Amino acid sequence: MNANVTGQLARQDAIVPVSRHLSYIAQTAFERPTLVVDSQAVARQYAALAQGLGRARIHYAVKANPAPQILRRLTRMGANFDAASRAEIELCLAAGAKPAQITFGNTIKRPADIAFAHEIGITHFAADATAELEKLAQHAPGAHVCIRLLVEATGADWPLSRKFGCSAAMALSLMDEARDLGLEVSGLSFHVGSQTREPQMWADTLDQVAAVWKAAKDAGHGLSLLNIGGGFPASYGTEVMAPNQYAREVMELVNARFPDAAEIMAEPGRGLVAEAGAIAAEVLLVSRKDADDLHRWVYLDIGKFSGLAETMDEAIRYRITTDHGEAQTGPCILAGPSCDSADVLYEKQLYQLPLALKAGDRVVIHACGAYTSTYSTVGFNGFPPLDVVVI
Amino acid sequence: MNANVTGQLARQDAIVPVSRHLSYIAQTAFERPTLVVDSQAVARQYAALAQGLGRARIHYAVKANPAPQILRRLTRMGANFDAASRAEIELCLAAGAKPAQITFGNTIKRPADIAFAHEIGITHFAADATAELEKLAQHAPGAHVCIRLLVEATGADWPLSRKFGCSAAMALSLMDEARDLGLEVSGLSFHVGSQTREPQMWADTLDQVAAVWKAAKDAGHGLSLLNIGGGFPASYGTEVMAPNQYAREVMELVNARFPDAAEIMAEPGRGLVAEAGAIAAEVLLVSRKDADDLHRWVYLDIGKFSGLAETMDEAIRYRITTDHGEAQTGPCILAGPSCDSADVLYEKQLYQLPLALKAGDRVVIHACGAYTSTYSTVGFNGFPPLDVVVI
Repeated sequence: MNANVTGQLARQDAIVPVSRHLSYIAQTAFERPTLVVDSQAVARQYAALAQGLGRARIHYAVKANPAPQILRRLTRMGANFDAASRAEIELCLAAGAKPAQITFGNTIKRPADIAFAHEIGITHFAADATAELEKLAQHAPGAHVCIRLLVEATGADWPLSRKFGCSAAMALSLMDEARDLGLEVSGLSFHVGSQTREPQMWADTLDQVAAVWKAAKDAGHGLSLLNIGGGFPASYGTEVMAPNQYAREVMELVNARFPDAAEIMAEPGRGLVAEAGAIAAEVLLVSRKDADDLHRWVYLDIGKFSGLAETMDEAIRYRITTDHGEAQTGPCILAGPSCDSADVLYEKQLYQLPLALKAGDRVVIHACGAYTSTYSTVGFNGFPPLDVVVI
Repeated sequence: MNANVTGQLARQDAIVPVSRHLSYIAQTAFERPTLVVDSQAVARQYAALAQGLGRARIHYAVKANPAPQILRRLTRMGANFDAASRAEIELCLAAGAKPAQITFGNTIKRPADIAFAHEIGITHFAADATAELEKLAQHAPGAHVCIRLLVEATGADWPLSRKFGCSAAMALSLMDEARDLGLEVSGLSFHVGSQTREPQMWADTLDQVAAVWKAAKDAGHGLSLLNIGGGFPASYGTEVMAPNQYAREVMELVNARFPDAAEIMAEPGRGLVAEAGAIAAEVLLVSRKDADDLHRWVYLDIGKFSGLAETMDEAIRYRITTDHGEAQTGPCILAGPSCDSADVLYEKQLYQLPLALKAGDRVVIHACGAYTSTYSTVGFNGFPPLDVVVI
């Protein structure tokens, strides 16, 4: 495709007048905080990413939002899936996915889950440690294994810790061990960091991975699969590049470094579903701690423990709108409803909200399609988990 | 009671040979991470606190652990309850508590929850803002209201933010407003901070509250109820004072400052149930990121999102034991099983665990009776919420 077509697609995306989930929220009264996800928007985003990713296969990171309707919709579009546990594998199967479409990418797997996956015909697993390879050899003999590399920190908004992956030297020795254990070393995986806003931010990481890829090939491992993981950004208010253009630019960087990779897979999660959803919530209380306080406290009926866990350390700053339109605003500390002093959403950087805001008012929290419903607690303080409606 | 009796009780507590929940864990195979709570230990702790608290009434903070068996046991012992929501009120009622035994202490209440509570006969509510008083006047006319004070930071292990309470000046004006709205101003509440290890750490806070109490009386408010909240410590490995002695010393500080308070209530949560429970979990993987790494990574089948949320910022450091006894230990980073890089339990301060520890080994996480099961997510990454067994 040429740049002109790309541009058109991006503009079409941008001019959708009012999104379906926001219309639905505007027309609906909710008993409690509810995430509304537009499955058509997910489908559009999938199509745009697929277009940009070209030859790379999309494995949706189920953990971002495992709502059955989303999984079914993606299955019908031919998507593949990456699962973190047996329960997520079962959700994919229930949505109509075949085992061949599912990879088991968690590097920390329960032995019983490995055995289950192997038994039903899942063939691709990830590992970053000897003990994990031994589990795979025992419970999924002959399985294909991707070795996960630990890459240096990037400029992602939600950078990953060193929890996953191993050093380049360790990766090479794990490949030898995997071969000796009768496993099929298929390739390398890595994660550039969640919410990596510029394609160019992938370059350094890809260079690191390419060096290991070359060393592995030199050592006689016939690698065929490069798993570029996730990192595709969602817009939380600030502008991000159109998904097809972003993916295309990332793939240009990938193709330049891995011309010999027979298969490429990507695992978008947030980048696929975040913008397709919004949460309808309600103001429970607006107060000041003292008559002289310069800012207000605004308490919502949703908080850190009922869906907004990604406000941890104020990492993700959601855009919030009210029915007060362009009315004059003032600074607030925003907090959740629980009797827990840690349940404060934004305090270090105050949030601007209308001065007229009061208890009972509706608020809409935007771009909440990813990492909200599953992060909900089972009912801390007796507040129910986030309700989910997929339209 | 005299000091000698107190001392005896403390020693009796200490010499219980092996606690029931630990015996139960040792004799049981679990399919998944499971919290085992000894209801007899909860009962013993309740009796000890009640003995120390003397004339103060215990309202168990249900949010700490709302397991039905715990609520039933406490109901049978004559406990009262503090609820944070309608769902928690309903749990108390289901456990046999009468509405008169339940207070609704969340300062951020849904109007429908207030109406429900009022309708079934709950009469005591908390508030720290004008808008909340207005909700109470509308949905629970004539209700008794405690004004929650914001007190200055103390030395608690888990200090509270400024989320709850209001300034002294605001408290006094809220009392006037409450009276004008036809509500019954019953008294003051505050929270000294969770896990306040020394009784003496209450003194400053009590002085602050006493000054407001006096000012309110001088202004013509016939206060009768002082709610001293929670803050009663649990032992997470380091020694804490016996509960009856701790409570007695706190009450000495209270009685010296509030001789005219007709009623005193306390809301222990953590201090009542934490030590009565332990979690049985399993090691999923032990690895190093590089052959030269000086420490290991130990991944458990439970993490921040499935029960151990209080490891946030490494605030609560749980004691963890294994079946390796006194074997030689080495430093580890401890992490949970999810594909989430934030799911790391202890990293800044490395954890010492046996060098022989390996995948499949049992670990027991101690003093987990409070704030674990309810902080679990509904199933992040497909991992089920923490299972709870009360024996």
